[in-house]
Amino acid sequence: MTDFKYIGTRPIRHDGVDKVTGRAAYGADFSLPGMLHGVVLRSPHAHARIVSIDTSAAEAVPGVKAVITGKDIPPNSAKLMLGGEAALDLRDMGDNLLAHDKALYHGHAVAAVAAVSVDVAREAGEKIKVVYEPLPAVMNVDEAMAPGAPLLHDQFKQNVAHRMELKRGDLAHGFAAADVVVEREFRTPTVHQGYIEPHACVARYGQDGRATVWCTTQGPFVVRDASAAILGMDPAHIKVIASEIGGGFGGKIVVYLEPVAILLSRRTDRPVKMVMTRDEVFRATGPTSGTKVRVKLGAKRDGTIVAASVSLWYEAGAYRGSPAGAGAMCALSPYKIPNFLIEGHDIVVNKPKVAAYRAPGSPMAMFATESAVDEIARELDMDPIEVRLKNAASEGDAAPYGPKYGPIGLKQVLETARNHPHWKAPLAENQGRGVACGFWFNAGMNSSATITLNLDGSAAVFTGNPDIGGTRVAQAQMVAEELGIPVERVRPSVADTDSAGFTDVTGGSRVCYATGNAVIQAARDVRDQLRARAAKIWNVDVAQVGWDAARAIPPSGAAGADNKPLTALTVDQLAAQMPHTGGPIVGSASVSMPMAGPGFAAHICDLEVDMETGRSTVVRYTAIQDVGKAVHPSYVEGQMQGGVAQGIGWALNEEYVYNADGVMENAGFLDYRMPVASDLPMIETVIVEVANPLHPYGVRGVGEVPIVPPLAAVANAMRAATGVRFTELPLSPPRVLQGLTEWRSSTFQAAGHSTQTALTRS
Amino acid sequence: MTDFKYIGTRPIRHDGVDKVTGRAAYGADFSLPGMLHGVVLRSPHAHARIVSIDTSAAEAVPGVKAVITGKDIPPNSAKLMLGGEAALDLRDMGDNLLAHDKALYHGHAVAAVAAVSVDVAREAGEKIKVVYEPLPAVMNVDEAMAPGAPLLHDQFKQNVAHRMELKRGDLAHGFAAADVVVEREFRTPTVHQGYIEPHACVARYGQDGRATVWCTTQGPFVVRDASAAILGMDPAHIKVIASEIGGGFGGKIVVYLEPVAILLSRRTDRPVKMVMTRDEVFRATGPTSGTKVRVKLGAKRDGTIVAASVSLWYEAGAYRGSPAGAGAMCALSPYKIPNFLIEGHDIVVNKPKVAAYRAPGSPMAMFATESAVDEIARELDMDPIEVRLKNAASEGDAAPYGPKYGPIGLKQVLETARNHPHWKAPLAENQGRGVACGFWFNAGMNSSATITLNLDGSAAVFTGNPDIGGTRVAQAQMVAEELGIPVERVRPSVADTDSAGFTDVTGGSRVCYATGNAVIQAARDVRDQLRARAAKIWNVDVAQVGWDAARAIPPSGAAGADNKPLTALTVDQLAAQMPHTGGPIVGSASVSMPMAGPGFAAHICDLEVDMETGRSTVVRYTAIQDVGKAVHPSYVEGQMQGGVAQGIGWALNEEYVYNADGVMENAGFLDYRMPVASDLPMIETVIVEVANPLHPYGVRGVGEVPIVPPLAAVANAMRAATGVRFTELPLSPPRVLQGLTEWRSSTFQAAGHSTQTALTRS
Repeated sequence: MTDFKYIGTRPIRHDGVDKVTGRAAYGADFSLPGMLHGVVLRSPHAHARIVSIDTSAAEAVPGVKAVITGKDIPPNSAKLMLGGEAALDLRDMGDNLLAHDKALYHGHAVAAVAAVSVDVAREAGEKIKVVYEPLPAVMNVDEAMAPGAPLLHDQFKQNVAHRMELKRGDLAHGFAAADVVVEREFRTPTVHQGYIEPHACVARYGQDGRATVWCTTQGPFVVRDASAAILGMDPAHIKVIASEIGGGFGGKIVVYLEPVAILLSRRTDRPVKMVMTRDEVFRATGPTSGTKVRVKLGAKRDGTIVAASVSLWYEAGAYRGSPAGAGAMCALSPYKIPNFLIEGHDIVVNKPKVAAYRAPGSPMAMFATESAVDEIARELDMDPIEVRLKNAASEGDAAPYGPKYGPIGLKQVLETARNHPHWKAPLAENQGRGVACGFWFNAGMNSSATITLNLDGSAAVFTGNPDIGGTRVAQAQMVAEELGIPVERVRPSVADTDSAGFTDVTGGSRVCYATGNAVIQAARDVRDQLRARAAKIWNVDVAQVGWDAARAIPPSGAAGADNKPLTALTVDQLAAQMPHTGGPIVGSASVSMPMAGPGFAAHICDLEVDMETGRSTVVRYTAIQDVGKAVHPSYVEGQMQGGVAQGIGWALNEEYVYNADGVMENAGFLDYRMPVASDLPMIETVIVEVANPLHPYGVRGVGEVPIVPPLAAVANAMRAATGVRFTELPLSPPRVLQGLTEWRSSTFQAAGHSTQTALTRS
Repeated sequence: MTDFKYIGTRPIRHDGVDKVTGRAAYGADFSLPGMLHGVVLRSPHAHARIVSIDTSAAEAVPGVKAVITGKDIPPNSAKLMLGGEAALDLRDMGDNLLAHDKALYHGHAVAAVAAVSVDVAREAGEKIKVVYEPLPAVMNVDEAMAPGAPLLHDQFKQNVAHRMELKRGDLAHGFAAADVVVEREFRTPTVHQGYIEPHACVARYGQDGRATVWCTTQGPFVVRDASAAILGMDPAHIKVIASEIGGGFGGKIVVYLEPVAILLSRRTDRPVKMVMTRDEVFRATGPTSGTKVRVKLGAKRDGTIVAASVSLWYEAGAYRGSPAGAGAMCALSPYKIPNFLIEGHDIVVNKPKVAAYRAPGSPMAMFATESAVDEIARELDMDPIEVRLKNAASEGDAAPYGPKYGPIGLKQVLETARNHPHWKAPLAENQGRGVACGFWFNAGMNSSATITLNLDGSAAVFTGNPDIGGTRVAQAQMVAEELGIPVERVRPSVADTDSAGFTDVTGGSRVCYATGNAVIQAARDVRDQLRARAAKIWNVDVAQVGWDAARAIPPSGAAGADNKPLTALTVDQLAAQMPHTGGPIVGSASVSMPMAGPGFAAHICDLEVDMETGRSTVVRYTAIQDVGKAVHPSYVEGQMQGGVAQGIGWALNEEYVYNADGVMENAGFLDYRMPVASDLPMIETVIVEVANPLHPYGVRGVGEVPIVPPLAAVANAMRAATGVRFTELPLSPPRVLQGLTEWRSSTFQAAGHSTQTALTRS
């Protein structure tokens, strides 16, 4: 299907006016009469045994209605299967919600208070007497793996929670055959998803044992099922209503507040609202792993990469489960390399438990490998795009993680990059240009959609996916396309867990692909029902009724009772007749989709470096990506631009800064330096469309790939601008200045070259 | 299907705890930030030309944001088809919302104000200067039909808006053959539905031309479609979310506030809340028709009724459209009478436009005919139940309104009444016993239902019908019955107009029948999908997969890959496997149902009369009714008891009291005397179940029939207790006292009999 009427157009999103006028209701915008406010008391220690908690003084504060601690979370050693797939460790989740025996990171929740106001609850929180026995903390993978390191979880005997590996061919043989070998070790800091809206919820528990939760989340079904499992409730007794969501990027899949709010509501018999401060969001939610990645690549003189070894050590935070596995799978994904070994390690440290962050695991792994590929190109004096094209995987090649690739767009995006004016554009002084690739799987999973047709021929469509990136308007476009009615006459919405069919999280770049397919199938269900109605009206067999644009087509030459030829019936006409032809029409569909076709991108970054201060500025950036099919190009471009912005922030400035006691020192947007609009140029985007055969329109998924290349693209541009290969992020002014200083010093001493020349063009 | 596991049981309703703890949110419980409050200025005249309206002083009041009048309702002469059936006159509806040229009743809306508080809005309302030219009013059918009567609508030349008739046989011949003839004229007052919750809504109109309305209503789709039609909006741009509803009884189908609130929100760009006072509810919503009905019955000496003529004159209120037609169809519905003429008249008067009220039109018509049948029994000295059984219609007889009855339960309820201990129980002094029948069609119309199955085997079901009488728990029972899962694990809910498939109003006793059937079909859709999943797991043809209780049954003798016999799979097992067998399961169904099987009831009423004050008390009451099948007997009994309570109120005390200027003098619950719990005995109920073949379980509908018999049952008991045939309701103490006094006087003068004796036992 390539001749689209609505797919590929750019209608105004249905939720747009609400959002720009402030009318849209986010997590903290919901309130209930008689509501209490809940606040959380958090550990001041990065690692400490909890000796005792005395809540009596807090409970005595007037206006305090309940104080709870980890003792109120029932013990649970089971795993929760979500959507029949992901397993969540309920013991860890419960312990993260309210610590039991130990506080495992600075900011770890140890108690919660419900009171008549936030101020009263905070005052009471300060009166909770917690006796801690501080323990030494481990704050990165090296400390965690050091002999004799303090253990977070005694029962596991070590802080390395898991190791996995992927391999192919004969590594030693491969490296032996290489003409050049590059080996480097890379590090990335702990960074946060940085969604603007903090976590917020209102929970109402009733005396009938049923609860309703309003919250900002990427996964209302996760909130329902996880809360039920943690609290020992029947999931059928919890209803979750998702608000509009002010960003998630993977970090709003985990439950932090909701089970606590349900507990407090159960205890007080009143609704309880909980809203995090920004400080709490930084200290106790997200982030993604700080990492160490060692890469060794071997290549022939013609640029063919013949051997690769990649070792990843990813921080999991306080509990097992980093994206090291995904990082391992992504690290070498663009390339067909005959001999490789990739190993991933999952390591607990005294930081908040990591949460998914846009293409979880991939940016750090590909920062390392795409920096190393750049070094190979330099060693061979080859164009870095040519090196990548030389090794690029294509349809039929086996992915490093196993299956053979279907049709993928890697070569197309690399060729598009090579042919883009940006790639050949001149650079000014102190500027450098970098290129890097990115990859993400694009998830599938379970989705449901329901469409109702109105008598006037308009329609409503709903799913269970909170809309982060414009999925509602895309769904309306799909309904419009299938039924031939205007997008504006389709009302898309996000339903609660009692109304939507089971639907996995908004994440994995899956919504437009998997939930979109459910929408398309539901629309086709409606269309089939319309054809059946036409058949009834015409008194012909439904198999003879055709469909064309927005009309049911009668059998060729067929005549009605009046002997006149039958004429086509429009959706409007058929809809108006519904009550007389069998009643209303509701179409629904559920799908369980395999992973979508992998998505590849190539990014080009021009960086200008202030050699005196180390401050660098992205002056031009072009993102080229195969998205399969862009349903609404504006939001595809927006996703690409957003991913680039986050990747540039990660590359240049973002990092958790800890002091010697394991206390985060920059838990606010003033000190945790995310890029703002004035920091960035307009991000140029080029959409490549290599249709994904698993989706009726070829949709592949778009949101995650674009955060992957910027880390290496920026670092490669920095190398080009300065001559220095930086291997540790962020490339913040102090680090760059230090790097430049060391390089000047060593270069000057070693070779007597003009430092200035090297700094201008490497 | 007669071997039920869940149907016919009495589980706790899912919404019960919310309601008894005050947690349930009704119309007035919803608020939005930045919300304005709207109030309506109403006509102080029953009939007046509006010469001018000056809103300038009101607009100048600080805090006033908008003032609107009838000029702001766009003219619209079209009709709105609802559910493809009912036609609403948009001109009349718009004029009723805000009067254009004339105020047609005391309380008619003439302007509306939106302001920062209710107080400010009221203050501003008082400053709107309306110049009226008062006109003479007509307050009942006699005044309206009098020669030279003032006309409400000049263009129609008369106040009789419509006349219809039903006839059979030869009336003159029939009466000529009769041995006894009874002729009486009956009157009933204007009465209100008396729902406890007043009309309330919040409307939010956005700059994108889309509106959301939260309101208490029986028909969210009516609110959507009527508001859109009146305001010239696209129905696809209005979303209606129904709150819990505190009673409706037909009166919450009409839109009174919602389009006005949308207009005010559009004008002010802020959400607008409107809540009626009780005074406004009485003066400007509901009520049902005041009526005059003349009945003439002729019977043979054996009790066979051979001729009947019935003339009905029903007040429509200020605009055309009373339930006279339905009254005409119901009047003689229980009886097979060879010769009859029934004529109905629809008459406009200067009162609020009537709205549907529980079995609209039937109680007044059957008050007249069932009183007359009682007189026939007295004339013939026959048992009144025997007279009714003698003439009772049964399967195959033609209803007076045309079609042949299917299986109906009239004879069964009459026989049950005759055999009930109540019928033979002794009476005390000053007590009398009456019996009467009642009939209602029970509507069908359009309904949709959607069911989602969760991974844990629980389910959610939703429809578009606000739940007035316990329909949610009944729907959960249907899902439980079809899938074999516990009722408590089914979450039933009411969805908004963007989520629910089109569904006609909650009314006509149709929800358990028609929407229930949609629920059953949706559950069977889920079951079929579960069978298909089992077939996939077993690798057998789906046609070979059976279903028994809550399990898919493998083909007899079939073995799995391990050569072991296949074993049945439960819903829980199949649900857990959903992600691996095709994804989530959502079942949906829509139906367009014919009218359900007619419902008949027989009621027995014992009344005790205080002969000195005229005050009467119902001391025992038994309601016997054929409901087809009682899904949840408690709520069937509750409906029967509720209908009886309203019918007794109508019979004994309720009435609109108007002064000479057409001003209602008792617009409050203190003066409009509805029965409270202490006024009534426990209403005994007997459920008769004659299965309705149009419904899979035999459901027939229950809510409306029970309000029909009490008017005549009470009047017949009054006749028995006092010897006086009262023909005008209510039988309030003053009227009864006056009747007794007149009767004593006439009897004493005419025959010299002992008044006391006659009053004790007639």
